[in-house]
Amino acid sequence: MEKLDETASLISSGKVMGTGVYNTAGDSLGEIHDVMIDKQSGRIAYAVMSFGGFLGIGERYHPLPWVTLKYDTRQGGYVVGLTREQLQGAPTFGGQEPPAWGDRAYERRIHDYYSAPPYWGL
Amino acid sequence: MEKLDETASLISSGKVMGTGVYNTAGDSLGEIHDVMIDKQSGRIAYAVMSFGGFLGIGERYHPLPWVTLKYDTRQGGYVVGLTREQLQGAPTFGGQEPPAWGDRAYERRIHDYYSAPPYWGL
Repeated sequence: MEKLDETASLISSGKVMGTGVYNTAGDSLGEIHDVMIDKQSGRIAYAVMSFGGFLGIGERYHPLPWVTLKYDTRQGGYVVGLTREQLQGAPTFGGQEPPAWGDRAYERRIHDYYSAPPYWGL
Repeated sequence: MEKLDETASLISSGKVMGTGVYNTAGDSLGEIHDVMIDKQSGRIAYAVMSFGGFLGIGERYHPLPWVTLKYDTRQGGYVVGLTREQLQGAPTFGGQEPPAWGDRAYERRIHDYYSAPPYWGL
């Protein structure tokens, strides 16, 4: 399915994974590690962006509300409207700190940080 | 993220891929090869189910509207309300016949076959 994994309207999750994430200044922030699907609505809740680490060791993850990502064809990746500094204060997980998927207080903190509308209210 | 790829409400696309698909009689129909995401809404449009073939040769794919799949914890896989015979007449693609993602007439045939509401009207 080499050439069938993306059209103007659809993209395969396989193609999304590994795609780079940049800020509006063009700085590389990380890449998409996985996407979390809301089972009930079939809607993507989060893109999980990985950054740092080496061969998976010391790697940390940013859960980004899907609505914060805009695909930029010129950049060939997703763009989020955040500086590196803003991202440093953003919620992360990894290693000993697992994400609390499904915990509304946890998820609300993530969405509030990015001023993103909650996926569960759509 | 071994144990963090699924909760009651969220599931990672990595976990969805490779998951078995069964009919209500418990027959194995195939497995999830990929999921196609509608970029605009962030909603899963299709699960692409692979079946047949060997090591990818001769394999064919069924695009299944996401809403037709119900996860069954007992079965440990997705269940669709179709007999094998019904599935044999269902839309497929593979090899020389690529899917026409984004072609509304093509997509409407798929959704009509499964009596599924179109994802683009949601």
